[in-house]
Amino acid sequence: MKKIIKNGTIVTAADTYIGDVVLEDGMITAIGLNLEAEGAEIIDAAGCYVFPGGIDPHTHLDMPFGGTITADDFETGTIAAAFGGTTTVIDFCLTAKGKPLQEAVDTWHRKSENKAVIDYSFHLMVSELNDTVLGELPQIIESEGITSLKVFMAYKNVLQVDDGTLFKTLQTAKKEGALVMVHAENGDVIDHLVEQALAAGNTDPIHHALTRPPELEGEATGRAAYLTELADSQLYVVHVTCAEAVWKIAEARKKGLRIYGETCPQYLVLDQTALEKPNFEGAKYVWSPPLREQWNQEVLWDALWSGSLQTIGSDQCSFNFKGQKDLGLGDFSKIPNGGPTIEDRFSILYSEGVLKGRISLNKFVDIISTSSAKLFGLFPQKGTIAVGSDADLVIFDPNVERTLSAETHHMNVDYNAFEGLKVKGEPVSVFSRGEFVIRDKTFVGKPGAGKYLHRKRFEASAPRPLRDKVSEGVV
Amino acid sequence: MKKIIKNGTIVTAADTYIGDVVLEDGMITAIGLNLEAEGAEIIDAAGCYVFPGGIDPHTHLDMPFGGTITADDFETGTIAAAFGGTTTVIDFCLTAKGKPLQEAVDTWHRKSENKAVIDYSFHLMVSELNDTVLGELPQIIESEGITSLKVFMAYKNVLQVDDGTLFKTLQTAKKEGALVMVHAENGDVIDHLVEQALAAGNTDPIHHALTRPPELEGEATGRAAYLTELADSQLYVVHVTCAEAVWKIAEARKKGLRIYGETCPQYLVLDQTALEKPNFEGAKYVWSPPLREQWNQEVLWDALWSGSLQTIGSDQCSFNFKGQKDLGLGDFSKIPNGGPTIEDRFSILYSEGVLKGRISLNKFVDIISTSSAKLFGLFPQKGTIAVGSDADLVIFDPNVERTLSAETHHMNVDYNAFEGLKVKGEPVSVFSRGEFVIRDKTFVGKPGAGKYLHRKRFEASAPRPLRDKVSEGVV
Amino acid sequence: MKKIIKNGTIVTAADTYIGDVVLEDGMITAIGLNLEAEGAEIIDAAGCYVFPGGIDPHTHLDMPFGGTITADDFETGTIAAAFGGTTTVIDFCLTAKGKPLQEAVDTWHRKSENKAVIDYSFHLMVSELNDTVLGELPQIIESEGITSLKVFMAYKNVLQVDDGTLFKTLQTAKKEGALVMVHAENGDVIDHLVEQALAAGNTDPIHHALTRPPELEGEATGRAAYLTELADSQLYVVHVTCAEAVWKIAEARKKGLRIYGETCPQYLVLDQTALEKPNFEGAKYVWSPPLREQWNQEVLWDALWSGSLQTIGSDQCSFNFKGQKDLGLGDFSKIPNGGPTIEDRFSILYSEGVLKGRISLNKFVDIISTSSAKLFGLFPQKGTIAVGSDADLVIFDPNVERTLSAETHHMNVDYNAFEGLKVKGEPVSVFSRGEFVIRDKTFVGKPGAGKYLHRKRFEASAPRPLRDKVSEGVV
Amino acid sequence: MKKIIKNGTIVTAADTYIGDVVLEDGMITAIGLNLEAEGAEIIDAAGCYVFPGGIDPHTHLDMPFGGTITADDFETGTIAAAFGGTTTVIDFCLTAKGKPLQEAVDTWHRKSENKAVIDYSFHLMVSELNDTVLGELPQIIESEGITSLKVFMAYKNVLQVDDGTLFKTLQTAKKEGALVMVHAENGDVIDHLVEQALAAGNTDPIHHALTRPPELEGEATGRAAYLTELADSQLYVVHVTCAEAVWKIAEARKKGLRIYGETCPQYLVLDQTALEKPNFEGAKYVWSPPLREQWNQEVLWDALWSGSLQTIGSDQCSFNFKGQKDLGLGDFSKIPNGGPTIEDRFSILYSEGVLKGRISLNKFVDIISTSSAKLFGLFPQKGTIAVGSDADLVIFDPNVERTLSAETHHMNVDYNAFEGLKVKGEPVSVFSRGEFVIRDKTFVGKPGAGKYLHRKRFEASAPRPLRDKVSEGVV
Repeated sequence: MKKIIKNGTIVTAADTYIGDVVLEDGMITAIGLNLEAEGAEIIDAAGCYVFPGGIDPHTHLDMPFGGTITADDFETGTIAAAFGGTTTVIDFCLTAKGKPLQEAVDTWHRKSENKAVIDYSFHLMVSELNDTVLGELPQIIESEGITSLKVFMAYKNVLQVDDGTLFKTLQTAKKEGALVMVHAENGDVIDHLVEQALAAGNTDPIHHALTRPPELEGEATGRAAYLTELADSQLYVVHVTCAEAVWKIAEARKKGLRIYGETCPQYLVLDQTALEKPNFEGAKYVWSPPLREQWNQEVLWDALWSGSLQTIGSDQCSFNFKGQKDLGLGDFSKIPNGGPTIEDRFSILYSEGVLKGRISLNKFVDIISTSSAKLFGLFPQKGTIAVGSDADLVIFDPNVERTLSAETHHMNVDYNAFEGLKVKGEPVSVFSRGEFVIRDKTFVGKPGAGKYLHRKRFEASAPRPLRDKVSEGVV
Repeated sequence: MKKIIKNGTIVTAADTYIGDVVLEDGMITAIGLNLEAEGAEIIDAAGCYVFPGGIDPHTHLDMPFGGTITADDFETGTIAAAFGGTTTVIDFCLTAKGKPLQEAVDTWHRKSENKAVIDYSFHLMVSELNDTVLGELPQIIESEGITSLKVFMAYKNVLQVDDGTLFKTLQTAKKEGALVMVHAENGDVIDHLVEQALAAGNTDPIHHALTRPPELEGEATGRAAYLTELADSQLYVVHVTCAEAVWKIAEARKKGLRIYGETCPQYLVLDQTALEKPNFEGAKYVWSPPLREQWNQEVLWDALWSGSLQTIGSDQCSFNFKGQKDLGLGDFSKIPNGGPTIEDRFSILYSEGVLKGRISLNKFVDIISTSSAKLFGLFPQKGTIAVGSDADLVIFDPNVERTLSAETHHMNVDYNAFEGLKVKGEPVSVFSRGEFVIRDKTFVGKPGAGKYLHRKRFEASAPRPLRDKVSEGVV
Repeated sequence: MKKIIKNGTIVTAADTYIGDVVLEDGMITAIGLNLEAEGAEIIDAAGCYVFPGGIDPHTHLDMPFGGTITADDFETGTIAAAFGGTTTVIDFCLTAKGKPLQEAVDTWHRKSENKAVIDYSFHLMVSELNDTVLGELPQIIESEGITSLKVFMAYKNVLQVDDGTLFKTLQTAKKEGALVMVHAENGDVIDHLVEQALAAGNTDPIHHALTRPPELEGEATGRAAYLTELADSQLYVVHVTCAEAVWKIAEARKKGLRIYGETCPQYLVLDQTALEKPNFEGAKYVWSPPLREQWNQEVLWDALWSGSLQTIGSDQCSFNFKGQKDLGLGDFSKIPNGGPTIEDRFSILYSEGVLKGRISLNKFVDIISTSSAKLFGLFPQKGTIAVGSDADLVIFDPNVERTLSAETHHMNVDYNAFEGLKVKGEPVSVFSRGEFVIRDKTFVGKPGAGKYLHRKRFEASAPRPLRDKVSEGVV
Repeated sequence: MKKIIKNGTIVTAADTYIGDVVLEDGMITAIGLNLEAEGAEIIDAAGCYVFPGGIDPHTHLDMPFGGTITADDFETGTIAAAFGGTTTVIDFCLTAKGKPLQEAVDTWHRKSENKAVIDYSFHLMVSELNDTVLGELPQIIESEGITSLKVFMAYKNVLQVDDGTLFKTLQTAKKEGALVMVHAENGDVIDHLVEQALAAGNTDPIHHALTRPPELEGEATGRAAYLTELADSQLYVVHVTCAEAVWKIAEARKKGLRIYGETCPQYLVLDQTALEKPNFEGAKYVWSPPLREQWNQEVLWDALWSGSLQTIGSDQCSFNFKGQKDLGLGDFSKIPNGGPTIEDRFSILYSEGVLKGRISLNKFVDIISTSSAKLFGLFPQKGTIAVGSDADLVIFDPNVERTLSAETHHMNVDYNAFEGLKVKGEPVSVFSRGEFVIRDKTFVGKPGAGKYLHRKRFEASAPRPLRDKVSEGVV
């Protein structure tokens, strides 16, 4: 049935204006003043913002990690996402060495297809890049529409690849029109520091942060940028946490390199001291890369403002404090990495970013939704409020004041990383392809209603003049 | 009368989609698929882009300079602008020391009001900032809606102000919500170099460039950035030409400073060798700052791509080769500075930028129109295609191939700075507040139809923590 | 009479070894093991260092400033210097606009000739650079051996020159083989900030620092470096205080530019909080540029270590707290700028630098003596312990512990800027051209014994390829 | 027998003066004017420079590489060195995984002890750093006086170690007072590029350079600097070739990090085009890292001048063109890396550096000799002309003009890398511990006369405040 959202303040990455939006057949079909349509359901949005639904480019749902599995799966995770204003997630499909890529993708389809309440897609992790994998990749990219490849420079002996593999991935991505995503930390050195810390009896959660100093993130980020330059390819640095890494990205972009960066809500509002909380509570705040000294937060905000960073991902990867995080009691290196962030990403960016004058409303939309759509081949189907786009929308009441808490959140996990943080503004209703998922703050969606999204290839820019031969692998 | 532009590919700073746009009462009232309206005039735009009209933030029309006056006035200048796809210009109102500001503004109103065929506004030049001027400024800003103040760091003994005046202007701008625009070159040293060159008998046009080396633009840009940081204010660097200056802006933005930059079409496609053309033809290419070595062009493109620069102004300031430029025969320092660029700005950015893969279509719109609207307080009235905005639109045929030339241009000047440059794409029809100004490549507008635009104040960001006291002038 | 200093640990900018030094006819004539000479006076230096006498490249003795005159003249000042291990000072000869340069130099000769107890020379201040001055300069440089020219970018309406004059000075210096010295602060903006502070009733000494923020030193330093690059000339930045300025020098040197920097003992061990001392005591710590936040100290030490800064000057400019500094009671801008530092420069650098592991012994000698000799045309006559050099030597006992204090210092001023600072090491005996000036910590010299030093021209490096024409003034 | 070198112009890293030097018992015992000593041999050096003998901190003599062995051994190599003015070499002792370190050192002693004509020492290569090796190291450092450890970031699957090993080496070096030396290139990516080039049929010598682009040297240099910072240790980057790497070192030193750099004569005067010489002659110029584009030369000279680089090593590693270099016919990756440079290092630095105005005479001595002595624990025994130091001296006639050539050189190899280069100045006589090795351009030394040098530990600076815990390995 046709719907008309009336009199909301419509916000896109470029525009802010009052108007009506017509939803029909899952699409936005018209935007205007005083629109009418016979038989249409009228939804009043006066006094509220109408935003494009958030896109979360970085989630780990139903993912095994260190002998346990994330607390949220595609059902609980996407419900929480929807409550938070997010209408698309892109999850990471983990591959195993020696196994066909298709097998991994199929596994991820099985995890998600009857559960997701909003649309979703997958990034593909690259754990090796031998001839077999190189043979499979083009087919996977084509048939599955998976146009982003994740590479780890950390997690030695587990996920980490060497620089040669990263470089080959960058060359392949250029050729196939994919975007390489990188976890940028120097895993070799971290591994050694962890070993030393444990040997010295330093087992508390804070040592997770101390053994992963920001220099090692800055180093790896700069290294990945160099490789991207040489391969004349494109790079997306996930979960950037600190000045050292931001500056490397800024430098690379100054040279015109197609390098992009994502940060996460936790790095914008939490800091390293959280890991010092007593009674092992610091374990709740164990992410990799770790939380940093507080002054880095302002650097991240500046980078979002100036465009050195383009997106915010949740890096949702929830583990219960009881029964999961406590696997690391007595050995911080065994604490499952990650936290529950999928639900509060949107509100934190709005409240801390827009309301504190750090970014504009349009920039907010760009960061929370549009940029991810463009970088990951979902635009203009997703990521904006425009005629012809999917009617993924959020009606957001800017006047509500509330406090983030595990007591009220919808994630399937026993703590909230932002417990006690006051925010202003709340999604009231959320639409996925024209249908209510959240209506007046109540979940009305359906597991399995979310559809898998084939994504377009990355549009490479003009080749840069200097390094053609190297980038083509014909040096 | 209502109009519907049908089936065009509508492009904004964020979006690209096919649809119909309804124009009514000078505004855009609806955008949608298959829109119909009884009695509306239908304009077919299939196969064409529909862009928001260009905004040229930097023109000098009907301006006296060195004993002569620019060849284009508000009539010929805005007609040429419209042919080129520009629907708003912001011209510089020159003040004289010791005279009331209002007098200068009134003069500019008289120059423009019966002539402009598209809408326009003024920046105000600051030639001194004593107590009298400080007393007048708030009133001018309020009543005239002039919310940008231009300061010259060059043209010693003519327009140049000292650093104290620039700093006071920045402090005043912060307080009043204005944006300071700066011509950043070190006038003291240039003055000395010019003197030395002439004394050495070096009088040809090329010496215009050699006496204004890029280091002096970089220096002044960095100096202005420092002063902006101290004043916690906002700065817009006009006509950025070279790497030295771009890098200073990029560094400042990396720190989160609200510093913006503009380049011009001439710096993107011409270079310093043009000043060496024989028979005094080099004089046609005398701009300040001057054209640079060619490699700087790629730096400028990268800066537009990465966001270190946000806008492109024409710096239109046309003088006939015969009768005006030749005032400088035998003494390059007497060549009137400037050239005819208002008409080709739009097409050059499209053809060299979008078609050569340097910037996206959305970025093109942002640079040619939206950014200027936002920075100079015209948004969302101008600068976008959104419901409620003025119907300033361009229907642009991307398939036309043509060659820029004085023989075909509409500027009132005897040469074209881009003579012989091949471009692809041409504005077919141009609308100002819903009315045709150009229809099927023919001028159908009317002198005096353009209206003066009161502009909004600059929205300052959150104050930065470190330098509050200095910026408030209470150290 | 011949003297032999025996068994000291001889230290130069390159070497450290134990040996004997023979002094004869004011010179060092031999260095060796177990040297003997009939009839020679034997001075035992076992367990002590034998250093070349310190060279203080930056003093203001007997100088008028703001209606008063420095407390120390060439007699008291050079006696204090000698006690502190310094055997050469280079003082600034102030010129007045419109008066012949020679007149100023003659005045300075009169101030010094019967008073100095150690050797000395002059730098020449450039207050204007018109044709008359340009005509006089070569003669002064030649006849007086004054091969360094000081320019002020601060002290608006008093000493400050514009950038054109600075640039011309750089060009002249290149041509004549002189080194340009610059006081790098943006005087225009400081002037304005001071005015605002006073208007707001902010009159205490701390506002001296707050109205001269480090950004304004960084800015001016960068500007001077740009001008030096363009003029392909040589620059020496006096009294560098902060990271902002150090980094500009480091960047310039990275490009191969002949740019040098000096810091002062006060910036290495004192910080901005000193200006907040109660009872107007902050006035004792009023220098321009001002003391900075403490973290800058480590940056300065690193710069001395890495070679971005080469020398340490005292910037001796003493005023009594009672009767002179108190001219600024109720108006910080009237506090005479400067402090008593000539005596403790040497010991502070040794104690805080060498003993705290920040610089090596050889680097200490380089900074305290050799570098200044080389930069200012006194080498190898001064600045080292080598055969043929003047026998200006310091026997330094590294084991003495003492506390700096006005009660024990020899400067003619009623406070010590480093009151209470504990240092280790003390000059025991000091020789000027082979004669004792200080013997066993007692002054045995004679006013007038110090001789005026004609200095050699600055040895320019090879011309840099890029900017020949500009630097030659023939653009 | 006692000798006196009379009337030479004695030059050290600090001083330049005319005098006499007395040599006795292998040492310098006196320096002075008109020195006499009964029975001493008088050597006239009037009109000549007397330099400390050069120290070559980077040689590979009698070294197996890729199935062949360097053309020069400790006899021919050190004779050639002596002809060239070098009196000390430090060679690299290669270790093998799984074998005791002592075994490797013993091998190197055997290679050198009856052959070297000048003094020498060894650096130790670290190929792995497990507990066994960690156990052996302190003993080797103590008993052999080997206080420098070499680590390779390139030569994958051969010499390359991972970042964890590099980091552990840095920590160990800090603890033991050793200096870590690093070959900084990203071996992983190079390995991949070489594979691609060969697969594409690109087998000529020029592809050696193209598969090792400067970005990969810059990247690795920056990475090593980061690790050094974290470990609060000390680093020496061998054979720096390009701007990308120099700038990384300069940045690190700006932060006060104890990071040092060496370049080689080939990078100062040759460039990448040499690898394109026809008839496989490009193979003569195959070094790793490779020769670079010519503009990098000026950056290297600037870095030597400003102190970002401190030393020049020959990286002597000679292979005959016939019979050795030609192993790489048809496959550039099989060309033995390295060239003959030990003999001409000294003269090239003098002629291209001093005579072209790029560095001063004192800086020349510092670079060619003193800096290496200080960094590698040989000072003041070696590296200077001072009382008590070894009498390793060079009498250098600055007036000779000659052309470098295989026809006249003394290296045991069939080509000269600098064939045809004209230089001015030549060592006339060379002394090792007071004895002639070269007398009037004739070799008069004796194989086996050279002694092995136990070196002192690296004197660490004060610990830096920030990273104590990490550097101590107790995070």
